[in-house]
Amino acid sequence: MASKNVLKIIPLGGVNEIGKNMTVFEYGNDIIVVDCGVSFPEDDMLGVDLVIPDISYLLKNREKVRGFILTHGHEDHIGALPYVLREMNVPVYGTRLTLGLVDIKLKEHGINKAIFNTVKANDVLKLGAFTVEFIKTSHSIADSVALAIHTPVGVVVHTSDFKIDYTPIDGQVIDLAKFALLGKKGVLALLADSTNVERPGYTMSEKTVGQTFESIFADAPGRIIVATFASNIHRIQQIVNAAIKYGRKVCISGRSMANVVAVAMELGYLNIPKKTLIEVDKVDSYPNDKVVIITTGTQGEPMSALTRMAAAEHKKLEIIPGDLVIISATPIPGNEKLVYKVINQLFQRGANVIYESLADVHVSGHACQEELKLIHTLVKPKFFVPVHGEFRHLKQHALLAESLGMPKENIFLVDIGTVLEFTHNSCRVAGTVTAGRILVDGLGVGDVGNIVLRDRKHLSQDGLIVVVVTISRETGGVIAGPDIISRGFVYVRESEGLIEQARQVVKETLDKCEQQNITDWATLKTNIRDELRNFLYEKTKRNPMILPIIMEI
Amino acid sequence: MASKNVLKIIPLGGVNEIGKNMTVFEYGNDIIVVDCGVSFPEDDMLGVDLVIPDISYLLKNREKVRGFILTHGHEDHIGALPYVLREMNVPVYGTRLTLGLVDIKLKEHGINKAIFNTVKANDVLKLGAFTVEFIKTSHSIADSVALAIHTPVGVVVHTSDFKIDYTPIDGQVIDLAKFALLGKKGVLALLADSTNVERPGYTMSEKTVGQTFESIFADAPGRIIVATFASNIHRIQQIVNAAIKYGRKVCISGRSMANVVAVAMELGYLNIPKKTLIEVDKVDSYPNDKVVIITTGTQGEPMSALTRMAAAEHKKLEIIPGDLVIISATPIPGNEKLVYKVINQLFQRGANVIYESLADVHVSGHACQEELKLIHTLVKPKFFVPVHGEFRHLKQHALLAESLGMPKENIFLVDIGTVLEFTHNSCRVAGTVTAGRILVDGLGVGDVGNIVLRDRKHLSQDGLIVVVVTISRETGGVIAGPDIISRGFVYVRESEGLIEQARQVVKETLDKCEQQNITDWATLKTNIRDELRNFLYEKTKRNPMILPIIMEI
Repeated sequence: MASKNVLKIIPLGGVNEIGKNMTVFEYGNDIIVVDCGVSFPEDDMLGVDLVIPDISYLLKNREKVRGFILTHGHEDHIGALPYVLREMNVPVYGTRLTLGLVDIKLKEHGINKAIFNTVKANDVLKLGAFTVEFIKTSHSIADSVALAIHTPVGVVVHTSDFKIDYTPIDGQVIDLAKFALLGKKGVLALLADSTNVERPGYTMSEKTVGQTFESIFADAPGRIIVATFASNIHRIQQIVNAAIKYGRKVCISGRSMANVVAVAMELGYLNIPKKTLIEVDKVDSYPNDKVVIITTGTQGEPMSALTRMAAAEHKKLEIIPGDLVIISATPIPGNEKLVYKVINQLFQRGANVIYESLADVHVSGHACQEELKLIHTLVKPKFFVPVHGEFRHLKQHALLAESLGMPKENIFLVDIGTVLEFTHNSCRVAGTVTAGRILVDGLGVGDVGNIVLRDRKHLSQDGLIVVVVTISRETGGVIAGPDIISRGFVYVRESEGLIEQARQVVKETLDKCEQQNITDWATLKTNIRDELRNFLYEKTKRNPMILPIIMEI
Repeated sequence: MASKNVLKIIPLGGVNEIGKNMTVFEYGNDIIVVDCGVSFPEDDMLGVDLVIPDISYLLKNREKVRGFILTHGHEDHIGALPYVLREMNVPVYGTRLTLGLVDIKLKEHGINKAIFNTVKANDVLKLGAFTVEFIKTSHSIADSVALAIHTPVGVVVHTSDFKIDYTPIDGQVIDLAKFALLGKKGVLALLADSTNVERPGYTMSEKTVGQTFESIFADAPGRIIVATFASNIHRIQQIVNAAIKYGRKVCISGRSMANVVAVAMELGYLNIPKKTLIEVDKVDSYPNDKVVIITTGTQGEPMSALTRMAAAEHKKLEIIPGDLVIISATPIPGNEKLVYKVINQLFQRGANVIYESLADVHVSGHACQEELKLIHTLVKPKFFVPVHGEFRHLKQHALLAESLGMPKENIFLVDIGTVLEFTHNSCRVAGTVTAGRILVDGLGVGDVGNIVLRDRKHLSQDGLIVVVVTISRETGGVIAGPDIISRGFVYVRESEGLIEQARQVVKETLDKCEQQNITDWATLKTNIRDELRNFLYEKTKRNPMILPIIMEI
């Protein structure tokens, strides 16, 4: 029985994981999708570039989809658009900066036909059965919004990523009154950011970072190089402000940083006086204490400008003793070693490096416990769905809501693909739809799966042994080989004896098979693989992949 | 000219890196070696199990080596002994617990002939030109010592890993008086732990963790499972104490935990009343609120007991809703994702999990800035060599020493293999000796190097294409093939077309070669590799390893 007068909320990404945020809202014949993000590959996804949500459910309901609504311009909220719009070119709604960043991305992918609709905070948008209100928030990127989605069964508030910053750089404080007003009128459900739920207290204001910059800039005797996320426009503005205050020119380095800065300046989100900006080529023509270089590479990304400077592989910029490098970010879990490697190299080249362990050169863009409590208290939702976090975050967020008096049964910890069905006074799990992760590797979208990853893992651990034999079609006898080629297993030059012994093992296996009249290739290959595996494991305690190839002539 | 009356200090590990601590002290015909540790493989050392120091220098000076002196029983200080003692069976000196842990390790490696000499704090040991004093310290393992090494040119103090704990669990406070006395008499050089130099203030006392345990145990309604490092005897003692206080039995789970606990109990470092200990099989016969399970797996190690419980793959222990899991450690950089995965799984199975983000269930074993300042101030060395840290740590430690008034030119930031030469009033860098990292993979020690690692990396990213062709020895013509086999590249079933096209590319290349009378194999292989690489990159933007194999008959 089709449940007609119900609202469905279906996360296709962003729960039980960090990243690839995407949430489906469905009522009758209308679907809107909030955000369309990527996540970065897990450690076991060898060689994979990106992970995007499985959108089978949207493709199956293609004619219902009224549009994508973007809350801000971070990769984990917009990064999958180039892949998704190729499959379904529906309208995209977002604030100016968000769409400006999407535009850069789509152009890089050669997509020109996207349908953009610019919105701004306080706008109200009607899409089928839904009326979407955009609410000003603060986050580590400018022009971010939360959503109040009015549906026939009630209002759903989706905070998306946010923090409460009473002194934001753009002067526009998060619209707490709007949250309060919605709460007062009655909110059916709250979906809220869980990223920082483990942290007590409040997230510091972005402005505190500016104060740290100012005090560091005041004393720096040489060049200053600041690495930050390209999308953190307000951070960049504060670096620029400190530079101007202390009479330094600003050089923007790195392609993604240059792209974002250009868009942000064009759209009026970033103000850098023309006479302050200098080109990379001109850096050397200014005294060291008159230059600030703003660049990417806070995560130790191998191809980023800072990483290349640290490794002395940057074409135009060289670290010189006396440089002060500020890494204005924290390592994302998993990147620590890469970041520390860059820091070590910078110190070794004579730079001084300031990073989060040493000074307050970064603040988070996500709400801590006290901020979350404030939003819960203002919005007073009937039902609560924690989003944007691993299970531990969602669970802690659920406990936080309970601590504020929300009944346990009104809190829903869901997985991607879970269908939540709402009426005006109920919420229940009503099944699941297809959801998952699609791996992007080079041009391939979805052609790398578990078998390929398992093979890559196997190859990465102990390498490979290829065994080639040519066999006579007539007699079944060996005409050439066995030859053995190894890669990633042992230094062949040092282990010639071992490889020769392995060849003997294969030879004896083939002889035995011939004596036993075993001629079918599958058995032959299995025997070779088994005997060789046992031999090599006993000799080396390693398990290379063994690839027997039989040629027949 | 041989510099005869000088002391040489040569780190073979433990500087510009975390781990594989090993320092050579040489005077005339005598060498003593402080510690003999392993480090864990870096992310780019695919498939590698362990890294040990290159001991070429010791092997070359084998007849001079009077012994290994161990400061404590952690892997990064003792783990390379099984490999090194196989090459040179010299006496090993250490405290009782340290040697007890070495003994477990050597037995696992089938080494029975080690020459052990037990020492204790305050002992004085004469070894050739050296007189070594053992000084009581605190660390995250019991029975750790610092060293005062008296040499003909002066005294060198080597703190090894330490912290200053005024309320240690064993009641034996670090021997500050000894450091002061040495300082008063005059110390030539200080080598000191740099691990926590980035952290201001003091490291908390181990006792604070015990207080946290007690308050958690007081309220826990169900089973308690505590994961910690097996070697942290004092932590285990505090868990046991809390268990006894609240009437719970203690079950030790995991092979390494059981081994260490057995040795520590036998040697008197750990006191668990017999009636408190229960076997794993007996856990279910006690009420949930009468049991504590102590186990390993704080780093999310795939084979550890906690990881297997979290994944429901443990043979004897199952997580049940209501279990309280305490992870009493912090993730070592690089392990964060593994640890969080375990935490997520535990929550999903209904356990409550307390980890460092949520409560003070761990303290470090290393000295923070104020503790380091105290040691520097007491020891008042003429020269300072920061050790045990990456470059950033060594650099910060140098700055800390400078801030206390030490002249910059008296501080030496050295690399592994650097030879420092001391007279009674001078220190200089006097060249280098062979030093490096030897990779252990399975039974292989040193047979995995850069080429093998590069191949593993390549294979892990985009997989492998094998091309096999059989060619006639007489005519040079193709008799069979080309056949193409791929692994870790694409789903073959979905990409049959691509593989068939690749076969055509190889065929055409072979035809072209035949027309141009190219018969030498190297050129043939290069051409196949180049054409196929270009074709595949254009089609997929991936670069699998291409392995052309030519069989001749």
